Amino acid sequence: MESLSAAERKEFEVFATGIADNARAFSLPRFRQPVDVTLKGDMSPVTAVDRGVESMLRERIGSAWPEHGLLGEEYGATRTDAEFVWSIDPIDGTRSFISGWPLWGTLLALLRNGTPMLGILDMPALDERWIGHVGVGTTMNGARCRTSGCTTLDAATLYTTTPDMFTADEWARFDRTSRAAYTRRFGGDCYGYGMLASGHIDAVIEANLMPYDYLAIAPVVQAAGGVITDWEGRALGLDSGGRVVAAATPALHAALIESLARD
Amino acid sequence: MESLSAAERKEFEVFATGIADNARAFSLPRFRQPVDVTLKGDMSPVTAVDRGVESMLRERIGSAWPEHGLLGEEYGATRTDAEFVWSIDPIDGTRSFISGWPLWGTLLALLRNGTPMLGILDMPALDERWIGHVGVGTTMNGARCRTSGCTTLDAATLYTTTPDMFTADEWARFDRTSRAAYTRRFGGDCYGYGMLASGHIDAVIEANLMPYDYLAIAPVVQAAGGVITDWEGRALGLDSGGRVVAAATPALHAALIESLARD
Repeated sequence: MESLSAAERKEFEVFATGIADNARAFSLPRFRQPVDVTLKGDMSPVTAVDRGVESMLRERIGSAWPEHGLLGEEYGATRTDAEFVWSIDPIDGTRSFISGWPLWGTLLALLRNGTPMLGILDMPALDERWIGHVGVGTTMNGARCRTSGCTTLDAATLYTTTPDMFTADEWARFDRTSRAAYTRRFGGDCYGYGMLASGHIDAVIEANLMPYDYLAIAPVVQAAGGVITDWEGRALGLDSGGRVVAAATPALHAALIESLARD
Repeated sequence: MESLSAAERKEFEVFATGIADNARAFSLPRFRQPVDVTLKGDMSPVTAVDRGVESMLRERIGSAWPEHGLLGEEYGATRTDAEFVWSIDPIDGTRSFISGWPLWGTLLALLRNGTPMLGILDMPALDERWIGHVGVGTTMNGARCRTSGCTTLDAATLYTTTPDMFTADEWARFDRTSRAAYTRRFGGDCYGYGMLASGHIDAVIEANLMPYDYLAIAPVVQAAGGVITDWEGRALGLDSGGRVVAAATPALHAALIESLARD
């Protein structure tokens, strides 16, 4: 199992929170301001803010650790076979960002030999930041946070971003599963995983995510006591399929996996 | 057409913003704290915070204007045939409130002879407040705001809270309409109408709302330049059916009504 020494954790966290501050300083003043939006090949929108944040983060990481690999939403992957790889989603929730909606975040992860070890989920417009170290713990704005104790689907508050992220078959599985929950709600992009890490909600189920969407989230959820895998229960890595299930407890996670798998 | 004099507008606004401040002072310290949740007859959740805010607001209004009518989510209606009637939704988005999600609001409206004239949409956890006076204007945190200039569905960013608010027939109409938009997004409860009034998004379509959900929203949207009606294009009042369509411009509103009506 991969791990980081206490000295490595400290060094990487200081660096990552510093560049997350830089990202905020770039993105937040541009929120709710006129911005050019273009559509990418997959019809998802991108703005000059997405590109500006990622360029800056890649430059900072490349200067500090030229031997590390990099994976980002806007500028692709380099050296992803390196021992250390950084994953960057400059604006997770670009559609929220361009809608004036405050639920957009910047996601940063550090992987060692393919395993996400450190994750930062930063919500600039809400001034909320989660930092997760696998095997150590998760903080929200500096205070230790924990997932809830929810163990059963019928007691669970479950979130997903949008029905539009699922294929028809996935929707049938999600719909059945989420209707058995205490309540299901929509919206939020990465924010749901922060709310899960802080114990406010109990589960998130999503699909059609990219590695830079979930790599930062995994340490935040895991180190807060939660479980996060793909829909088949496998650990998330660089080449997971984009279907994510995150739960407050192992028992709730097992119930979700079982329900999603049923035909 | 109903109207308020400048002196009436000033008096009611000062009073309403004062009690909205009181509501915030009650609700915000209780956000993300343990709270008892019970389910009402319609299976919607209610907390001691919903009840506490509404009790306080009813008492303040009743003391100031004992002859005015009152309509609230938790404690029902009295004297709704009075010249002036206040509508109260103490916590719009109770499911968000109990999920630690900051997108919950307090809604206050003043009706004269059945027409909503003044609306307050207050978002305590985001420190954002919209105040709309029909025929005069809407402000957000004191600054005048306007809806966008969007006139066509294919350019519109459209929000709704959840697919779960629609019947099957309504969903078919909503689904067709929203898929023709530039983008559709889910989540937000009352917040979408604030984003519409501020020009960040272009339309909101919802169903299964109650009068206290939409009465405060109507002045906020209208006085910002938007159009808000039921799905048949009729003005919203105490006995509208709960299906709401709000748009940035008359042209976009007409396009939405036409699309929703088509079989």
